[in-house]
Amino acid sequence: MPWRIPLNPDRPTEPLPPEGVAAIHDAAMRVLEETGIEFLNEEARDYLRSAGCAVRPGTANVRLDRGFVMAEVAKAPRRFDITPRNPARKVTMGGGHMCFVNVSSPPNVMDLDRGRRVGDIDAFRDLIRLTQYFNCIHVAGGYPVEPLDIHASVRHLDCLYEKLTLTDKVVHAYSLGPERVEDVIEMARIASGLEREEFESQPRLFTNINSSSPLKHDWPMLDGAMRFARRGQPVIVTPFTLAGAMAPVTMAGAVVQSIAEALAAIALLQVVRPGAPCMIGTFTSNVDMKSGAPAFGTPEYMRATQMTGQMARFYGLPLRASNACASNAPDGQAMWESANSLWSAVQSGVNLVYHAAGWLEGGLIASYEKFVMDCELIQQIERYFEPVLTDTTPDSLAVEAIAEVGPYSHFFGADHTQSRFTSAFYAPFLSDWRNYEAWSEAGSIATPERANRVWKAILAEFEPPPMDEAIRDELGAFVARRKREGGAPTDY
Amino acid sequence: MPWRIPLNPDRPTEPLPPEGVAAIHDAAMRVLEETGIEFLNEEARDYLRSAGCAVRPGTANVRLDRGFVMAEVAKAPRRFDITPRNPARKVTMGGGHMCFVNVSSPPNVMDLDRGRRVGDIDAFRDLIRLTQYFNCIHVAGGYPVEPLDIHASVRHLDCLYEKLTLTDKVVHAYSLGPERVEDVIEMARIASGLEREEFESQPRLFTNINSSSPLKHDWPMLDGAMRFARRGQPVIVTPFTLAGAMAPVTMAGAVVQSIAEALAAIALLQVVRPGAPCMIGTFTSNVDMKSGAPAFGTPEYMRATQMTGQMARFYGLPLRASNACASNAPDGQAMWESANSLWSAVQSGVNLVYHAAGWLEGGLIASYEKFVMDCELIQQIERYFEPVLTDTTPDSLAVEAIAEVGPYSHFFGADHTQSRFTSAFYAPFLSDWRNYEAWSEAGSIATPERANRVWKAILAEFEPPPMDEAIRDELGAFVARRKREGGAPTDY
Repeated sequence: MPWRIPLNPDRPTEPLPPEGVAAIHDAAMRVLEETGIEFLNEEARDYLRSAGCAVRPGTANVRLDRGFVMAEVAKAPRRFDITPRNPARKVTMGGGHMCFVNVSSPPNVMDLDRGRRVGDIDAFRDLIRLTQYFNCIHVAGGYPVEPLDIHASVRHLDCLYEKLTLTDKVVHAYSLGPERVEDVIEMARIASGLEREEFESQPRLFTNINSSSPLKHDWPMLDGAMRFARRGQPVIVTPFTLAGAMAPVTMAGAVVQSIAEALAAIALLQVVRPGAPCMIGTFTSNVDMKSGAPAFGTPEYMRATQMTGQMARFYGLPLRASNACASNAPDGQAMWESANSLWSAVQSGVNLVYHAAGWLEGGLIASYEKFVMDCELIQQIERYFEPVLTDTTPDSLAVEAIAEVGPYSHFFGADHTQSRFTSAFYAPFLSDWRNYEAWSEAGSIATPERANRVWKAILAEFEPPPMDEAIRDELGAFVARRKREGGAPTDY
Repeated sequence: MPWRIPLNPDRPTEPLPPEGVAAIHDAAMRVLEETGIEFLNEEARDYLRSAGCAVRPGTANVRLDRGFVMAEVAKAPRRFDITPRNPARKVTMGGGHMCFVNVSSPPNVMDLDRGRRVGDIDAFRDLIRLTQYFNCIHVAGGYPVEPLDIHASVRHLDCLYEKLTLTDKVVHAYSLGPERVEDVIEMARIASGLEREEFESQPRLFTNINSSSPLKHDWPMLDGAMRFARRGQPVIVTPFTLAGAMAPVTMAGAVVQSIAEALAAIALLQVVRPGAPCMIGTFTSNVDMKSGAPAFGTPEYMRATQMTGQMARFYGLPLRASNACASNAPDGQAMWESANSLWSAVQSGVNLVYHAAGWLEGGLIASYEKFVMDCELIQQIERYFEPVLTDTTPDSLAVEAIAEVGPYSHFFGADHTQSRFTSAFYAPFLSDWRNYEAWSEAGSIATPERANRVWKAILAEFEPPPMDEAIRDELGAFVARRKREGGAPTDY
C-alpha cells in the first residue's frame, strides 16, 4: 500500500447530546477551578502565577479559572503538520486526518521463535525496520521496545541514532529530563540537515507527556513539554485515567478528569508560547474490578474514546488515542480488543493512533507477529476510507452492466469487471482466503504463523532509507561526544 | 448476561449523501423497469401479472414499474415482533433493535478436539444447545450445521424437533419445497400450544430466501415466501451479491442489484398479502480477484452494508446482515473479519445479524470455539449499547469524588467506586486480562483453548427449557407420522 495520510470521511459516532458535552465541560472546569492540578515544577507554576492563576502557597497546587483555560486553549492550532528529515513523510495532525504510530515503550519483546524476553537493541532495530517498511505506519513514536541492554544514561542516544538512520519518518522524544530532550531535538536537527532557526520554524518532531493521574503533572514531563513548546514543537498531553483506579469508576467521570488534566497542561503551554501545537491524548479505560488489572478495547474504552473525541472537537484540538489490548498472545482476544480499539478511534475522529501496531499484554510486550497483524487491519481501515468504495457515479451504479450480463450469466468476464479488475478490491497481504482444503494442503498455517513469515521476509530484504553520509557522520560524532560526556543523568 | 432485546443508540454511519441514496434508488428502479427480474414460479408471475406488471410472454421475466414497487413496499411494516413458543423470548425486528442469530447451514463442523468433519445430528444438537444457552443469541435460525447423517427427506422433521425441544427461541423454516415449509410451520404451531387461527394472528417464525443472483428468484424460495406471507409470517429476502461474480464489481453496483432483487420479492409478497412482514437482507461482499474466492468482513463489505442500511431506512424496512469471515481457523484473521462484520452491522443500523456466532471458512464450517468467541464479542456490543456508559448526570461526572480523592490517593477505596463496584464494567467470560506471568503459570491458554473449555462446561450442564409433556408427545407423533409418509421429496 502506498504512503499517504488517510482522511477519515465518516461523521463521528457521538454518544453525548450537546447537553452531555456541556456537562463534561462544566465538570472539568469545576475540577480545575475548585480542586486544581498539582504542577510539580516550579517554572511551570511561575508561568501560571504570572498569568494570574492561583498557586496555593507552599504547595504545587494551581487552580485554573475557566475563562483563563478557554482563552489559552483557543490559541492552540486546530491542525498542524510535522515534517521529518524526509519532507515526503510529512504528517498532518487534525483536519479529519488519521495517522498511525508503532507500539511504544514495552519492556519486553516476543515472537513465535524466541518467546517473550526482555527488550534489547536488536529487537529495537527490527521493530523500527518494520515501522519504516509499512506505509500504513506514519510515525516512529516512542521506542518500539525498551533496549534494556543499553545503559539508561546513553539509551536515548543509541535509540535516536537507530531511529534516524533506519527510518525517515517523524520521530519522538521522551520527556525524561532536559539532557535527553535537548539531545533528541539536536539529533533530529542534524538529521534534517537544517540550521536551528529553519529547523524550529515549523514542527519537526514531538513529545508525549502523561499526567500522573489523579491531577498531577510531574517535573520531567512538564520540563520536556515546555522545552518543546518554546521551540514550536508539538506536545501531546495524555492522562492515563483508568476508571476505578486513578480516575472515577464512571466513564464520564474518568473523561472529566482526563480532560481537566490535559487542558491544564495545554493552557500552560499556551502561556509558554501562544499558538504552540498541542494535542489531547486519551488513555481512558477500565480495570478488571476483581483484580484491578487494566483492560483495553472494552465497551467502556470505546465509549470513553468517543466521548473524548466529542470534547476534543469542542475545544478545537487534535486527538490522540491508542490501539490497546490486554491479551498475552497474538490470538483472537488480541484481535477483537485491537479491532474494538481501532474502530473506536475511527468512530471518534482520532487524528493519531499510538501503539497502532505491535502491542500486547497491556503494553508490556512488543510482538513481532502482532505488529504485522495490526498492519493488516490498519491497511483495511485506510482502504475503508477510500471514496471509491461508496462512489455512485453512473459507471459505479452499473445499470448497463447489469442489463448486459442479464439473469443467466455472471460478471467475471464482463467488460465492466475486466476494466476494474486489478484495483476493485483491497488485496490483503496476511489474510488467507483459500478454502479449507487448499489451506490445509498448504500446511494449515494460521494467522500468527503467517505473520511470522511476513516479518522475516521484510527484515531479510530491508534497506534503510537514504541518508547523506556527512549527516550520518555528524550524527555518529554527536552520539560519540555525548557518550564521552556521560550521557544523561539516570536519577530522574 | 441476562436476556434482552438490545437497542442500538448510535446514529448510523452513512457514507452516502442524500444524492447517493437517490442515485442507488433510481438505478435499482431502472433495473426493475428496464431489465426486470426472473420469477421462476408461475404462481408468482400470476400475482404480478394481475397486479399490472409486464410479464414477457413465454419467459419468466417480469418488469416492475417503480410506482408499483414503491406503493407495494410501503405496505410492509417498519417494525414487527416475532413470538416463539416461549413468549418471553419475543424478538423485535426494526425500531432500532438489534438481534443475533446462530450460524446457519454449514455442511461441516469443527472443534479443537475432533478437527473438521462432516456435520451430523450430534453436532447439530450441541450447537443448538449453545444457541439456547447464550442470552446474547436471540434466534435459532437455520440449522447451525447440516446433519448429513439424516436423510434429506426427513431432516427437517428431526431438526425442528430438536430445535423446538432444545430451545424456546424463535425458529426458522428453510424454503425448500412446500412439504418442508408446511411441516415446519405446523411443528412450530404444535410447540406453541395454539390453535391455527391464533397462531397465525401474529408472526411466530420466519423464513429467509436468497435470490439466485443475478436477477432470479427460484421456484421453491418463492413458493415458501408466498406461503409465509399468506399466513402473516415474516420473510427475509437476502440476495447473495458477490461483487465481481454474481453482481457488478463496483460496490454501489452490487448494492443496486441487491436492492432490486430484494424489492422485487418484497413487492410480490405485498401483493400476496398487503402488510406482510418483510425484511431486506444484505449479503453483498467482494471476491478475491485472483481466485474468485468469496471474502467477508472486508472494507468493501463494511461499506456495502452501510450503504444497504441507508437504503433500508429509505424504504422503511428492517435490515438483516451477517457476521461473516473467510478464515479457516478461530484465530486472529477470524476475529478481525468478524469484528469488521459485526461493527459494520452496528454502524449500519442492522436489526438482525445472521451467522452471528460460529461461522468460519465463508460459511462452510460451523466452529464450536468460534461460536463461543463470537458470543464474547456480541456481549461486548450489547454492553456497548447500554446508556450508563455515557451517562453524564452529576453522580457520573464525579466532580465531588475527584475532589475527595485528590491528587495523592487513588479511587479503589473511594465510596464513589465501592458503591458501583460490581456493575461498573462489563466482565468478560472469555477474555484473559491477567498479566503474562499469571497467564503463563496457568498454562498459557490462548483464546480458542479457553473457548474449548467454555463450550464443554456449557454442554456438560445444559438443561433444555421446559416443555409441556403433551406438546412434546404431539410433536413426536407428528414427526413419526410424517416419516411414515416418507417426509418431503428430495428432488427439489
